[in-house]
Amino acid sequence: MISKRGLLLLSTAAWTARTAGITVQGGSARAAGEPLYSERYRPQYHFSPPQNFMNDPNGLVYFRDKYHLYYQYNPFGMEAGNQSWGHAVSNDLVYWENLPVAIHDTSAGHIFSGSAVVDRLNASGFFPDSADGGIAAIYTLATYDGDRSVSQKQNVAYSRDAGLTFTEYAGNPVVDRGETEFRDPQVFWHPPTESWVMAVALSKQWKVLFYATQDLKSWTQVGSFGPAGLLGDQYEVPNLVRVRVEGTDQHKWVLLVSINPGAPQGGSATQYFVGEFDGCNFVPDDGGTRFMEFAKDAYAMQTYNNLAWRDAIAITWLSNWQYTNVAPTYPWRGQMSVPRVLTLRTTGSDSGYVLAQNPVPEIEKLRDQVLHSGSVSVDESTPFSLPLGGRQSFEVVVTAASSGGGMASINLTNGTESLVVAYDWAAQKVYVDRGGTQGFSNPDFTPTFATDYPAGGAVKLRALFDVSTLELFVDDGVRVATSLFFFQDPPDSLVFSAQGSAVEMDLQVYAYRSIWPPSAQPA
Amino acid sequence: MISKRGLLLLSTAAWTARTAGITVQGGSARAAGEPLYSERYRPQYHFSPPQNFMNDPNGLVYFRDKYHLYYQYNPFGMEAGNQSWGHAVSNDLVYWENLPVAIHDTSAGHIFSGSAVVDRLNASGFFPDSADGGIAAIYTLATYDGDRSVSQKQNVAYSRDAGLTFTEYAGNPVVDRGETEFRDPQVFWHPPTESWVMAVALSKQWKVLFYATQDLKSWTQVGSFGPAGLLGDQYEVPNLVRVRVEGTDQHKWVLLVSINPGAPQGGSATQYFVGEFDGCNFVPDDGGTRFMEFAKDAYAMQTYNNLAWRDAIAITWLSNWQYTNVAPTYPWRGQMSVPRVLTLRTTGSDSGYVLAQNPVPEIEKLRDQVLHSGSVSVDESTPFSLPLGGRQSFEVVVTAASSGGGMASINLTNGTESLVVAYDWAAQKVYVDRGGTQGFSNPDFTPTFATDYPAGGAVKLRALFDVSTLELFVDDGVRVATSLFFFQDPPDSLVFSAQGSAVEMDLQVYAYRSIWPPSAQPA
Repeated sequence: MISKRGLLLLSTAAWTARTAGITVQGGSARAAGEPLYSERYRPQYHFSPPQNFMNDPNGLVYFRDKYHLYYQYNPFGMEAGNQSWGHAVSNDLVYWENLPVAIHDTSAGHIFSGSAVVDRLNASGFFPDSADGGIAAIYTLATYDGDRSVSQKQNVAYSRDAGLTFTEYAGNPVVDRGETEFRDPQVFWHPPTESWVMAVALSKQWKVLFYATQDLKSWTQVGSFGPAGLLGDQYEVPNLVRVRVEGTDQHKWVLLVSINPGAPQGGSATQYFVGEFDGCNFVPDDGGTRFMEFAKDAYAMQTYNNLAWRDAIAITWLSNWQYTNVAPTYPWRGQMSVPRVLTLRTTGSDSGYVLAQNPVPEIEKLRDQVLHSGSVSVDESTPFSLPLGGRQSFEVVVTAASSGGGMASINLTNGTESLVVAYDWAAQKVYVDRGGTQGFSNPDFTPTFATDYPAGGAVKLRALFDVSTLELFVDDGVRVATSLFFFQDPPDSLVFSAQGSAVEMDLQVYAYRSIWPPSAQPA
Repeated sequence: MISKRGLLLLSTAAWTARTAGITVQGGSARAAGEPLYSERYRPQYHFSPPQNFMNDPNGLVYFRDKYHLYYQYNPFGMEAGNQSWGHAVSNDLVYWENLPVAIHDTSAGHIFSGSAVVDRLNASGFFPDSADGGIAAIYTLATYDGDRSVSQKQNVAYSRDAGLTFTEYAGNPVVDRGETEFRDPQVFWHPPTESWVMAVALSKQWKVLFYATQDLKSWTQVGSFGPAGLLGDQYEVPNLVRVRVEGTDQHKWVLLVSINPGAPQGGSATQYFVGEFDGCNFVPDDGGTRFMEFAKDAYAMQTYNNLAWRDAIAITWLSNWQYTNVAPTYPWRGQMSVPRVLTLRTTGSDSGYVLAQNPVPEIEKLRDQVLHSGSVSVDESTPFSLPLGGRQSFEVVVTAASSGGGMASINLTNGTESLVVAYDWAAQKVYVDRGGTQGFSNPDFTPTFATDYPAGGAVKLRALFDVSTLELFVDDGVRVATSLFFFQDPPDSLVFSAQGSAVEMDLQVYAYRSIWPPSAQPA
């Protein structure tokens, strides 16, 4: 007496695949001897670890011409656990080299999320023998008794080999309030006060606390923020960053606050507040609550340190805690966004500044074959079908105009399954619909997403497709949807079509190079 | 090359049924001669107008032992338009008598949302010949040039026949800022300042302005609030009300702010802020953003005036602007919630006060046949099926406990279609799933809703089912889901089941009396 949909719901509890080591039940099988990075759902230009479970980006810092990406990592399993800091580096934010685990969890506790800074002048005393200082990591040491949190406190560790390995500071912890839900320190240099500032979440009290230090060892609380915005069950991974207002040299401060669970689309999501920061307190311009995304697969966004010479660069983890532990990838779980440039924009549809996110320009170096370039006219009876020739990693840039309303759509399909991005001129909405893909079934894997986009003139969409990842940037990045998708059988074509009216599209489609395996990367 | 789901999306633009007068294309046909209030989808104890389109509740006021319910109404059509104030009255908040339209739109403009107060002492001079004063209505007069708003200003009208008919005040408008998006005045008496206060939305600036008056004619702006919370495209129908903290005699102020579009589940929704109000400014306790509902069919909640002797009573419109104009009901569209009692509660899962909503106790007088009362044990192989015997209006009150986790569900079904309410002990979530009903297809008619409900012990659900309306009150009303649903064929049974573990339920099911037709109501 239970409908099909009812059954879908009701099978949840029993459905969670449990894993041990890198053995996984329920994931896609990998053929024996198949090389890493060629698996069925492996993104080809989004960073993912060779194997096992990855979540939040940590310690994003630029040092000695390298972009470092540390990440929450379980070296021993396909689900969250044994939290350690994995590590990768890049020369250009495009090609990544994965390196050995930088900080291992120990019997003393798990190494939860945190950040990394460059102590160029050896203010900490950690780098007596270096002319240009070194990398210090600030993270949460978390101890548990079974599932019960016993303590969460902030520790510092330093690396004398440019970020490869870390030594724990003997005076740890550097911040300890005797709390059990107090984590994810983000530390950055604040020139006006000549101090490092830490933003850290008092998670279950929905507060972000601010601390300051001159030496990374002795910290003083200088301010706090919250409760504010959508509270969800808890706050996590705060990130305070200075962001430029487009078209000007002016900057505002943006505070990112991730919540989980309790996001608008369910599970985890990141919201942001725009305002001013004086080194002690963050004061938002207004009481508005704004989210980074209108889909649900981006969380824990963090920004790079030591990049004062360019606009703020952010990386966000691409999944949702509702289903990340059962995603059908193997032998890894978790992938990162393409690094994104953050800017602020004023729009007619918001009283304040809106955060715009766009892929870093460096990503365009991956444009390989031009699959299409030029204008296309489509209507109800005349779709435009572009065979993909086996490519599953590509970029679509489209500006669309309709004289008579109606709807335009981009359909990634294999004839049976489909992933659709659409714009409806009557409803003034952009849609993402992954409900037509059949590779993953989960009650929380929401099929459709939509957001209002009152396009005055032409509709502007830029979509990065990468095997199982879609990053959709609408209207030059003020509306973003990041969505995982899993086809049972690989799609073979992109179909551009229109309903209700003829639509003119200015269309570019680029096949993207793979950045894997690392041995194939350009020198 | 478009998937079924793709096609569903793509048919939207062309799908909107246009109506004129009470002729409707696409609605359910009514058999010739069928009496009003016996139609296929007509709720039997939720207020709906005899015919044509209804939206926001207006002018909720208690006067001379009657509860008045005015409402936004199109007397001439099945879609929003010709905005006028419809009118109904009740002795008990349960049985309603619909009355003639109270305020008609004219060539001077549409009569948008507003409120009503009792001027007992004739401070306005409108009621010189009454010993107990009379009802004054304060509403927005809106003028349009085609779809373009030309002006929105606040007017007053008075009724010398206890609310049946109104006369426009000759000195109108009473508040005019020369704005085109400035509407929905809610007026209430504020004893500490011995004045009436108006909360009114400066919609596209995401502000609620506060005005005060002693005579309902001369108004002074005394404060403002916002931007705050989720902004959406615009603010509408603010409502400031004093609400009791459960277990105490203390009160806080609650400001309801509806947004449309841009709600968490899409389209329209009502958020609330808890704080203090001094007669001039509303100051929220924190910056948290909280919503009334976890489903999407409740909007424009308003509270009753002149009820100082009891807890705050609210009514909310049950639909969503995304699809209200195409809902498959005929010859009417729109229904109101059961009146709800508002209280504030502290919970472990929020740093502040949480608004609790529960049906007014009076509604229990509709309990007719007891369909079941007592404990029920269910497990995977042993569901409990309750035949409904043709009843489509009923109440389910259940307290459920599981020793081993798993999931429990309540499934309203006809064997093919189903509406499911479920609780998952592992995920700690309550679900509503209307995706298994087949009477209405629309891309924005979201199939499933979920919210986190960390039930420490027993799970408490109370569900009011009424033909096409579900009001679900979880955990004594701190989590509420109001959801329309449309079966193609009427459901005939309720199936209680469990998966993954045996579940013990303490269960009451009551068939409800109909309050229609009015001629059948008790004297």
